Amino acid sequence: MRQEKIPAKHTITRDPFPASKKVYVKGNIHDIEVAMREISLSETKASFNGEVEQNPPVTVYDTSGPYTDPNVDINVHEGLPKLRAKWIEKRNDTEELEGLTSMYGQARLYDNDLDWMRFKHLTTPRKAKEGQNVTQLHYAKKGIITPEMEYIAIRENQRIMEVADKGVEHPGNSFGANTPKSHITPEFVRDEIAAGRAIIPCNINHPETEPMIIGRNFLVKINANIGNSAVTSSIEEEVEKAVWACRWGADTIMDLSTGKNIHETREWVIRNSPVPVGTVPIYQALEKVGGKAEDLSWDIFRDTLIEQAEQGVDYFTIHAGVLLRYIPLTAKRVTGIVSRGGSIMAKWCLAHHKENFLYTHFEDICEIMKAYDVAFSLGDGLRPGSLADANDEAQFAELETLGELTKIAWKHDIQVMIEGPGHVPMHMIKENMDKQLKECHEAPFYTLGPLTTDIAPGYDHITSGIGAAMIGWFGTAMLCYVTPKEHLGLPNKKDVKDGVITYKIAAHAADLAKGHPGSYYRDNALSKARFEFRWEDQFNLALDPDTAREFHDETLPADGAKVAHFCSMCGPKFCSMKITQEVRDFAKENGMTDMSKEEIAKGMEEKSKEFAEKGSEIYL
Amino acid sequence: MRQEKIPAKHTITRDPFPASKKVYVKGNIHDIEVAMREISLSETKASFNGEVEQNPPVTVYDTSGPYTDPNVDINVHEGLPKLRAKWIEKRNDTEELEGLTSMYGQARLYDNDLDWMRFKHLTTPRKAKEGQNVTQLHYAKKGIITPEMEYIAIRENQRIMEVADKGVEHPGNSFGANTPKSHITPEFVRDEIAAGRAIIPCNINHPETEPMIIGRNFLVKINANIGNSAVTSSIEEEVEKAVWACRWGADTIMDLSTGKNIHETREWVIRNSPVPVGTVPIYQALEKVGGKAEDLSWDIFRDTLIEQAEQGVDYFTIHAGVLLRYIPLTAKRVTGIVSRGGSIMAKWCLAHHKENFLYTHFEDICEIMKAYDVAFSLGDGLRPGSLADANDEAQFAELETLGELTKIAWKHDIQVMIEGPGHVPMHMIKENMDKQLKECHEAPFYTLGPLTTDIAPGYDHITSGIGAAMIGWFGTAMLCYVTPKEHLGLPNKKDVKDGVITYKIAAHAADLAKGHPGSYYRDNALSKARFEFRWEDQFNLALDPDTAREFHDETLPADGAKVAHFCSMCGPKFCSMKITQEVRDFAKENGMTDMSKEEIAKGMEEKSKEFAEKGSEIYL
Repeated sequence: MRQEKIPAKHTITRDPFPASKKVYVKGNIHDIEVAMREISLSETKASFNGEVEQNPPVTVYDTSGPYTDPNVDINVHEGLPKLRAKWIEKRNDTEELEGLTSMYGQARLYDNDLDWMRFKHLTTPRKAKEGQNVTQLHYAKKGIITPEMEYIAIRENQRIMEVADKGVEHPGNSFGANTPKSHITPEFVRDEIAAGRAIIPCNINHPETEPMIIGRNFLVKINANIGNSAVTSSIEEEVEKAVWACRWGADTIMDLSTGKNIHETREWVIRNSPVPVGTVPIYQALEKVGGKAEDLSWDIFRDTLIEQAEQGVDYFTIHAGVLLRYIPLTAKRVTGIVSRGGSIMAKWCLAHHKENFLYTHFEDICEIMKAYDVAFSLGDGLRPGSLADANDEAQFAELETLGELTKIAWKHDIQVMIEGPGHVPMHMIKENMDKQLKECHEAPFYTLGPLTTDIAPGYDHITSGIGAAMIGWFGTAMLCYVTPKEHLGLPNKKDVKDGVITYKIAAHAADLAKGHPGSYYRDNALSKARFEFRWEDQFNLALDPDTAREFHDETLPADGAKVAHFCSMCGPKFCSMKITQEVRDFAKENGMTDMSKEEIAKGMEEKSKEFAEKGSEIYL
Repeated sequence: MRQEKIPAKHTITRDPFPASKKVYVKGNIHDIEVAMREISLSETKASFNGEVEQNPPVTVYDTSGPYTDPNVDINVHEGLPKLRAKWIEKRNDTEELEGLTSMYGQARLYDNDLDWMRFKHLTTPRKAKEGQNVTQLHYAKKGIITPEMEYIAIRENQRIMEVADKGVEHPGNSFGANTPKSHITPEFVRDEIAAGRAIIPCNINHPETEPMIIGRNFLVKINANIGNSAVTSSIEEEVEKAVWACRWGADTIMDLSTGKNIHETREWVIRNSPVPVGTVPIYQALEKVGGKAEDLSWDIFRDTLIEQAEQGVDYFTIHAGVLLRYIPLTAKRVTGIVSRGGSIMAKWCLAHHKENFLYTHFEDICEIMKAYDVAFSLGDGLRPGSLADANDEAQFAELETLGELTKIAWKHDIQVMIEGPGHVPMHMIKENMDKQLKECHEAPFYTLGPLTTDIAPGYDHITSGIGAAMIGWFGTAMLCYVTPKEHLGLPNKKDVKDGVITYKIAAHAADLAKGHPGSYYRDNALSKARFEFRWEDQFNLALDPDTAREFHDETLPADGAKVAHFCSMCGPKFCSMKITQEVRDFAKENGMTDMSKEEIAKGMEEKSKEFAEKGSEIYL
């Protein structure tokens, strides 16, 4: 059904964003350069405030990686520059292996039939030296601020620095009490990691990744799922989807491939991904036993973990909370078990009448993960697949077990986040968040949606975007996107973009509601541009400049319209923005700009009298 | 720029929804027939529960009007059947006028140049007899249950009746504590209207409308704005947009036309609209004075109100709360005044140094409106156009004034709703709702969005859908949609549909969160269909069956795939839904379906022992 195809050398999307350039901010502690995107703005015309006003550029958090920097030479066959390689080497606690440890990895490597589709520039994996723990949590607990941590502090701060350091003075940054001034410091990052409230997914075998953090005291992050299935898509498409998802704002990607050649697909994706990559290893393990869940074994799973850890997967979804005794709790549900991982484990447990081997081997899993700094994403195998099943006994029983497992992982200094939601009506969302914080000791929450209604297949990016924004506000650290194709098929590039933009909206709305320092900066700059009819600036500041521009041009395509002081909604004769300007002038002339409601009332009364005496000539 | 064009006779969208038929439920008090849509479902195959199960049809609230009933003959040149004409006549408190009262209306009527674009089957308008008040609020206060009220009670109830009366027993309706059993009675409708907590917009000159209610103790409603501007679109497009918006779920439409021929456009729209039509009369008044706000006068406005009331507009947005003394409060805003109506009045007030004539003539306006039963939608001329301006002094000062005006309107027994939001970050939404309920004495709230971030032009249906769902949950009675073109251009048909579906999602999510009786019924039926791989049922139960089907077919176009027990996400070999079925069978065989967590744990332990003794043969 499906045709395999590897990426052509230069076919991935590389256009820089309009009016944008990459800027690199140097670290103070470490020799690092933190990539950001700077959007330059045009000036405000004199017709607005009486004089020309310069609008300073806006710097935004940038997940697109080197792809949007035209100065970086990229060849997908070679992969991205290895940003973190030196940092990792310098720590001197890892070593290069002699070759792959995984039996399966070796088998694939020596299979000549796969040569044509194999990533060409494979490097030998690294692993912790004997007795060493190389996780960021381990360093953080020891009081070490790693380059990754400093990178993150700078990255999370950018918009605040701009406001605080440059002292920019325009309505764009004067949000009064709503513009917090505090900076995120490298020490704060370290402290949050040490406390388990945040994680930095960064496998030592994925040095290409630009460090990012997942924790509720930082910007809310989003994940985009990609991956082929037995039915559709190819390696080429998946690599482009990964680059594409990062372009629009994915903070991490999960490769959920289930078809053939998922080992090779993953290699291509990781080598070209500037963001952390997560997987659900049980999917591949299942492939290895021909799709028969009951044939799974700890040995096969163990080899899969090592195989993927040595490729550089940054976090693993592990469904270790699906306990044998919880499974019958799902029998009376409307939609039973909808998590693939959850149902695989359920089938295995029932077939063998044994406890979930991911649970019984949990400490063995920990031993593997800490040698590469792979983070846990403890899977919610019993998440609700319909509103009717939300917040039920099965879901919450599993969550309690995930809390127990969190403590075990922390004992090994392994970073942990917890997966959650699915389908949950709005009034039941907060209960999820509160329970997760309590049961899982404040480990970061990573939720799918939740979808707030079941009746809109084809629009589940929206049904879930509503829930995602809310749960993000309540404290979820990372939102797993849902595309319009959810429940219906695999997402294509358009769907990936729709999903990412929708979730970027949800995450940003959550940041605003949480009062994340500096989060209002871009909103205010865009609103100011909108008000002043700086159309190009409005487009360029948008999450999706292309669509904003395209929609505008549908009605008023002429270039002249983009500098016009009106828009197609009201037409040239009447414009509410223009009238506001007159109000501003009036208030200024009459010294009312900073008056209270009461003072204005009094002033207006006097004005009216004066005006009547003069014979009521029209003022404007 | 723009080319006028009238609708062709049979070019509007009339396809019935798939697997759906119109059903008409008779009243008990009045001789009425309430239209609903019944979606028939296929049976559950024996492979799921051991035996074939019939799935009863699902009846849903239907705003599409007679267009989706193939048995009704419709000609847009004649307009829709006049459903309410007899009810209105029977009340015997109105009379047919001798002709149009409005000077402008007459001028347009006698202008032969307009003949070709004029709606052909004009009828003479009705008005209350001298001394009569013909509003639903007036009847309600007198204890009268009108046919409109009974129609609404039946309409709002449909899904509950199905559950309660037919006693259907399947997971689709067993939502336990979350499925309320109470019915909405005609007396309850009357009582909510009498209390001012709900309104029924139903001008006596719009007998084509199917009665609907706006109030927070009923289903959350949505409004779709249509209307041409001086720059784009024609009568033909606007009529089709109206029918199209109703098809996808608009409960009311607002005709916000600002170009030429808006009198004629409106006539075409009203005569063909099965839902109430709202307008902002000041827009047309402004056209009449050549776009110069300072030339507006009470006389011109008064004539416009009468002109539109006699055409059948069901509610008027009146910006009577934009007081002279509030205007300077907007000077320091990031985006000043963004409401068109608000800025028109601001300009007029400043130009004349006089109080807003809509405020000073408010009781005169009441006299006109009660003679036709036009409802007030008290406009929020000072709503925030950016997050930075949310919940500020200007916005809330106006809201307080709207509260005063509500009391005056109620003195005249005129139905009132209050317009609100705009751009508001999530954490500031609830304050709006609480303040509105308090200041406006529980009159229904009707809000635009709110948009929860400013940075996503091109996706503002989503930025605002998030806020709309939340404010709907908190108590807003009607949500005014926002399309993807907001801030960028006028919506085309695709945008209208995207906006309507997004808002239908928001409204339904709010109904679910509020626990509106029966609101879970459709969700549960769809989830059951999804779980059982009844693909066609899943599509047909969706808010947008066309898109759901199309998305599915993109990946698996074969008809066989629609009955397949797998989907493109996981492929044929592995399917989580299938495994759940095995879990169900297991629980049933072992009598665990209704066991507690503890009982199951015990049972499982015994099972495991037994299993080990037997030699651990694989069970499944």
